[in-house]
Amino acid sequence: MTKWGLEICFTPAIFDAYADSEAVVVVVDVLRATSSICTAFANGVSEIIPVSTVEEAREMKGKGYLLAAERDGFVLDFADFGNSPYNFTAEKVKGRTVAYSTTNGTGIMKRASECHDVVIGAYLNFSALCRWLEGQERKVIIVCAGWKSRFSLEDAVCAGAMAERLLLGGRFTTSCDSVHAATDLWKAAKDDLMGYIEKAAQRSRLRDKGLDDCLEYCHTFDVTDVIPVLRDGRLVTL
Amino acid sequence: MTKWGLEICFTPAIFDAYADSEAVVVVVDVLRATSSICTAFANGVSEIIPVSTVEEAREMKGKGYLLAAERDGFVLDFADFGNSPYNFTAEKVKGRTVAYSTTNGTGIMKRASECHDVVIGAYLNFSALCRWLEGQERKVIIVCAGWKSRFSLEDAVCAGAMAERLLLGGRFTTSCDSVHAATDLWKAAKDDLMGYIEKAAQRSRLRDKGLDDCLEYCHTFDVTDVIPVLRDGRLVTL
Repeated sequence: MTKWGLEICFTPAIFDAYADSEAVVVVVDVLRATSSICTAFANGVSEIIPVSTVEEAREMKGKGYLLAAERDGFVLDFADFGNSPYNFTAEKVKGRTVAYSTTNGTGIMKRASECHDVVIGAYLNFSALCRWLEGQERKVIIVCAGWKSRFSLEDAVCAGAMAERLLLGGRFTTSCDSVHAATDLWKAAKDDLMGYIEKAAQRSRLRDKGLDDCLEYCHTFDVTDVIPVLRDGRLVTL
Repeated sequence: MTKWGLEICFTPAIFDAYADSEAVVVVVDVLRATSSICTAFANGVSEIIPVSTVEEAREMKGKGYLLAAERDGFVLDFADFGNSPYNFTAEKVKGRTVAYSTTNGTGIMKRASECHDVVIGAYLNFSALCRWLEGQERKVIIVCAGWKSRFSLEDAVCAGAMAERLLLGGRFTTSCDSVHAATDLWKAAKDDLMGYIEKAAQRSRLRDKGLDDCLEYCHTFDVTDVIPVLRDGRLVTL
């Protein structure tokens, strides 16, 4: 049986060194963009349009879209709401199209759109996503959103959990150093995941802004089976 | 007592996100550039001039410098020798100035030269370097050379070993996710360092080219007390 390649890219800033037009790209931004996107689809959002810049976000709002947008944890003043998964309730998003811009998570979706597929990964849709990836018969690149081009611990740990699952499944193989590192970080973290994540800089940033109420939720496995995928610049559910 | 910041940058491609003009930068390229540079100074080289491009390397050769230069593990055809630490014998380098260009290790030395100091780190000069860093009373950024903008396991593990030592010494503190990750990788690796490094892609690259005779030597602690430092574009020893 052919085994497919598996790679992890620790920050979008080095994505060019990993990009492969034949690969499926999984974007992971545990705190909080990809957790929020999974929650939005679980709550019936129709489409999410990822928007990279603040200017684009403002334009989308002007066009009448519901806008979720933050920078550095702060809601942009012209947005309808920010980046907490708890904002994306069925009441607010069901059947709607949402324009969405965050500090780190949304830019890479656009940059990766030249690859075969771009899907959204989080603990929340972990098992459904891994099963789907195993059926694709393609190389998989997990891209961690990181923080302003820096390495982020919470994304690397989640990517390591996915990589461990995919490698144990036997359909994937790897010669990627980041995969070895991330799976070892996951091994160090998994017996006390919430304790381990206390070390993460993003955990401190969220606490400082009083935005850490979603921390445990964002580290919960398999809340939903949705697999958000990018189609013509918009996220829809498979 | 003031504690100084400690950060790790996993690849030169994201150095801009870590750069700080007040910091001391430690460049780590275990396999093999910084191990070779430490060996060269231990063997009495007078100066090493880091050269970024193949064209610059050719020019330096034309000017009469002894030239060590490789790309992807292959010696450039106009160079005197390549990037193995075993090339930098006292017979060849003692009292000489060497121009030196490698795939990943030398470019970052130039890019980091706007910081307060740029020094060369390896297992070979580990304890001497850590003692010196503890005396600087400055923030330290350890930069892993990586591989063509990608994350490299062997550099991250060495950086983690340095970070663990520096944090245990009590003069440094950190809120850098890469430091937490690298120290955990070091903890996973240290009981069987050579076994752990078997996973590294660079270990396979060196084996494929028959260049892995230096693997164990490059993972040997404290062969020398030299601390190569960049002064006006040239590496000299402190």
